[in-house]
Amino acid sequence: MIVVVCLNPALDVTHHVPAVDWAGVNRPSAVHARPGGKGLNVARTLHALGVDVLVVGLAGGITGAGVEAGLGELGIPAAFTRIAGETRRTFTVVDGSGAAASFHEAGPAVGAAEFAEFGVRYARALTGSAAVVLSGSLPPGQPAGTDAMLIETATAAGVPALLDTHGEALLRGAAAGPAIVKPNLAELEALAGRRLSTARGADRTEVAAAASRLRTTGAQAVVASLGPEGLLAATGDGRWQARPSAVVAGNATGAGDAVAAALVHGLVLGRPWDERLRHAAALGAATAAAPVAGEFSPADYASALSTVTVGEVR
Amino acid sequence: MIVVVCLNPALDVTHHVPAVDWAGVNRPSAVHARPGGKGLNVARTLHALGVDVLVVGLAGGITGAGVEAGLGELGIPAAFTRIAGETRRTFTVVDGSGAAASFHEAGPAVGAAEFAEFGVRYARALTGSAAVVLSGSLPPGQPAGTDAMLIETATAAGVPALLDTHGEALLRGAAAGPAIVKPNLAELEALAGRRLSTARGADRTEVAAAASRLRTTGAQAVVASLGPEGLLAATGDGRWQARPSAVVAGNATGAGDAVAAALVHGLVLGRPWDERLRHAAALGAATAAAPVAGEFSPADYASALSTVTVGEVR
Repeated sequence: MIVVVCLNPALDVTHHVPAVDWAGVNRPSAVHARPGGKGLNVARTLHALGVDVLVVGLAGGITGAGVEAGLGELGIPAAFTRIAGETRRTFTVVDGSGAAASFHEAGPAVGAAEFAEFGVRYARALTGSAAVVLSGSLPPGQPAGTDAMLIETATAAGVPALLDTHGEALLRGAAAGPAIVKPNLAELEALAGRRLSTARGADRTEVAAAASRLRTTGAQAVVASLGPEGLLAATGDGRWQARPSAVVAGNATGAGDAVAAALVHGLVLGRPWDERLRHAAALGAATAAAPVAGEFSPADYASALSTVTVGEVR
Repeated sequence: MIVVVCLNPALDVTHHVPAVDWAGVNRPSAVHARPGGKGLNVARTLHALGVDVLVVGLAGGITGAGVEAGLGELGIPAAFTRIAGETRRTFTVVDGSGAAASFHEAGPAVGAAEFAEFGVRYARALTGSAAVVLSGSLPPGQPAGTDAMLIETATAAGVPALLDTHGEALLRGAAAGPAIVKPNLAELEALAGRRLSTARGADRTEVAAAASRLRTTGAQAVVASLGPEGLLAATGDGRWQARPSAVVAGNATGAGDAVAAALVHGLVLGRPWDERLRHAAALGAATAAAPVAGEFSPADYASALSTVTVGEVR
């Protein structure tokens, strides 16, 4: 079983309104609502891959109950610690031209006693689990060292961790020695304090150097996701890149989360790095090709898998 | 106990965004979410009045669970029949100037087996209850005779019914002989097929005639709610009007539902019509004066109660 930690889950609601009246009452022609946030995207992808997952995290109020109900409908086991605050929603209105306005609620503040209760449940969930994924933002006010602390707890329990976050939480978390950290290009650039890309795309030499630097701070492996340009990994078995041959335009939201899911999947299966990266690049490409954020078709995955090129980087 | 039927409940979500970017990502400064729809407004008002209520109806999906959780947080007992469809949300964005854009989801379709299950629970809930309130729209595709059928079931159980709906459902429901129907001016005008008001407000002679006509179709009493102009009732004890002295501007949403709640409250207490109408007009005015839809302050209610004038209409 893989434990997926979602400290700041969301309910993502999308309204399709062909011609929006921004000063009146609209009746959307289509409505989609589902559990969201990076951690839940990872859990959904792992579930689609047939992997046993358990979602743990913090959920509260009407929306927290909605997130739990949504995961239940998807058949994804979850054991949230209930908090007094209200879990956040994201609300997106898409008009006939495809233009979108989004409204992102802030997550709820978490009380010290609530987080302590979560910590007990987290430690219990780690028992007998094969890996843990820490993905997404922290609730407002939660210390930047939270992911690092959760990684240390996992390490003490002998459970490898994958971390996907940004900024100070990423730096502190990487130093705690997780098995894998998965920054994207923007997150690596923020850490580097400068651009690692040109108008033609990511500068692979620069990205590889930045990934290696992040690895020296403590992470056992760093895998940078570069969108349509694939992946670049700095590992204990050398540096690797994986490139899909061509990426079909769809909805890139959730593609990075699919990469994280595939990387932890390959980790628990004990596959070598080249296979893990091929799996992850193909799943990311298939997810980006799907019209609905965070989903993928098995056919797209199979097709992408056969065209990904993986090679060592010197 | 008063049974409140909500066949098409909603979760009302409001985002306050001081300066809205209609083409980008917004982070609301304040968020409110609560169970909504006319029936649930009635139930909340009755609960605030200290009346035992039981909400029954249809709820499904993530939002249905959210509505149930929200009622639980409010301490309002509910026994929804779970349906496969997704309960609707309304979503409103209010900007710094007070201008608002609303997005109203359609309710879910209800299967015949689901409605049959609800019918069993409804009949059970009627046992020992003092009254039943049928308020709000029907789910899409539900027959217009649904309210009439539910009124007949209540009558057979010896339970008086209050009906607050519109159009064909109102006509058919009134013919089923409920204790009270409570149309507003627009609903009465739609039935009459013409305006019953002038630029100076409702034409009381015309409204009284329309209420009496609706009463002759079967309803034991018809109470027309006229917004700030109060109430006009055609009853077995004659025709009455109730006028608040002055209405403070607030949020009129839910004021009609407060009127319905007060009318059924007066019914189960066995109060004479003049007292019922004074209570209802005062509660409607207090609700309209409150900044949040569907709430009222006891002080506003007490103040309004002392200034409502009630008199017979010849």
